[in-house]
Amino acid sequence: MFLLNGESRHCVDVSDRGFQYGDGLFETIAVCNGRPLFLQRHLNRLLAGCRRLLIPPPDLSLLESEARQLSAGADRAVLKLMVTRGIGGRGYRQPDQIVPTRLFSLHPSPNYPDSYQTDGIVARFCEWRLAINPGLAGIKHMNRLEQVLARAEWWDESVQEGLMFDSNDCIVEGTMSNLFFAKAGILHTPLLVNCGIEGILRQIVIEFAIRYGLGLAENHFNKQDVLEADEVFVTNSVIGVWPVKQLENQCFDVGRITRDIQQWYAGACEEEANL
Amino acid sequence: MFLLNGESRHCVDVSDRGFQYGDGLFETIAVCNGRPLFLQRHLNRLLAGCRRLLIPPPDLSLLESEARQLSAGADRAVLKLMVTRGIGGRGYRQPDQIVPTRLFSLHPSPNYPDSYQTDGIVARFCEWRLAINPGLAGIKHMNRLEQVLARAEWWDESVQEGLMFDSNDCIVEGTMSNLFFAKAGILHTPLLVNCGIEGILRQIVIEFAIRYGLGLAENHFNKQDVLEADEVFVTNSVIGVWPVKQLENQCFDVGRITRDIQQWYAGACEEEANL
Repeated sequence: MFLLNGESRHCVDVSDRGFQYGDGLFETIAVCNGRPLFLQRHLNRLLAGCRRLLIPPPDLSLLESEARQLSAGADRAVLKLMVTRGIGGRGYRQPDQIVPTRLFSLHPSPNYPDSYQTDGIVARFCEWRLAINPGLAGIKHMNRLEQVLARAEWWDESVQEGLMFDSNDCIVEGTMSNLFFAKAGILHTPLLVNCGIEGILRQIVIEFAIRYGLGLAENHFNKQDVLEADEVFVTNSVIGVWPVKQLENQCFDVGRITRDIQQWYAGACEEEANL
Repeated sequence: MFLLNGESRHCVDVSDRGFQYGDGLFETIAVCNGRPLFLQRHLNRLLAGCRRLLIPPPDLSLLESEARQLSAGADRAVLKLMVTRGIGGRGYRQPDQIVPTRLFSLHPSPNYPDSYQTDGIVARFCEWRLAINPGLAGIKHMNRLEQVLARAEWWDESVQEGLMFDSNDCIVEGTMSNLFFAKAGILHTPLLVNCGIEGILRQIVIEFAIRYGLGLAENHFNKQDVLEADEVFVTNSVIGVWPVKQLENQCFDVGRITRDIQQWYAGACEEEANL
């Protein structure tokens, strides 16, 4: 199901700057019980991204109503929202009047095995680096070649995620997730000032840590920091919280902090889905 | 005029990875006298880019024939070719069988004043940096937010181009051009191992330098190197060779080396266009 500028279409004009240059942003939203979860957070992040890219955002109440319209009736699904700078301008120069393109699309929820959540996943380190670019760091823009090429490094179905470094050898995040690890009872997550995406679930986990009195360290970390952790997990809005049971040759238990966060998140989702 | 996968269409499926992630490449080709100029060079660069991005290229003879088909009858035009990884795959993961999308589009030649070529243009330095990313350096991929945002720094019609630095303060290129400068009879151009696009005209100018015995220095340069040059010019396939007559507060004459290169390039274009 698609809603392109409010119409039921799934073809975009090739002159759209989203196609020409990746000139836009997107949100990937979990749908449960006919409701888009944490919709306000996603829309707020989209707004912040539009401000950074100088794209006048579509009307928020319109976005909200279209999101709810597409989600209604879907028990479990994934709702994607894309906003581009639209058509026009000469070359890279933007048009004098920007008319943003908005696209909603509803997708089936991926059929991940329950064991990914209960027992954990296998991850690897990627060769492809995330370029250091503070101006674009944190926002979920449409220039995603780094992630595409990092993901292309492995075909092995027994590996679920790859972790990426920046060009300073700092560990940043997974190809499609944010990264957390626990050491001596303190929750750690990479600081995303240079690259990476500030995930919605990442922010929620950080808030849990503060709310429930978990020590939290948000900083630059390296490969050894992760390999020497007690627990490791990755997060995104679609997968939730996946423990990492193995990273290259290093094995990890699914620890107490990971379980607590899974539980708190499940509770938050139930509230959002009005279950 | 558009040719999308050989059909006269100008709408692309929103699931195309070129739209979703900027997962593809493009070429911008000058058309003169019904002929796409330096077509083989453009197709070779596209091939090299496809290899780097692991995209199986469309059949070369098909690309060539469609390029000639669209160009025939156009006295002066701009032919754009885009090749994406097509539709499919789950998230960033590419499809098992990649069926690339190819799009040709023909555009009117921009109506630049003759004075840009004869007297030169005004340029400025940009704040937006080119991120250092050797894996993507040189190729003309579709992730162009850096160029979009650098170009958005100025509206002033009296400034024609902005020059960009990388995060090591090395001067790299313009938002839509490559950069050359001459000092004491030696031609200089930034080395593009970390970022930037290896332009077709850039390569032709380098070959001129070698062929006609001009000293050539391809290296890392900084702001001062450019400001202290005797001559400065920028190049791309559509504009040709534009002298820079003013860069911020620094003025430059249009020098002998620039004029020679303009002349050699005009001759090469005449040959290509069979005039």
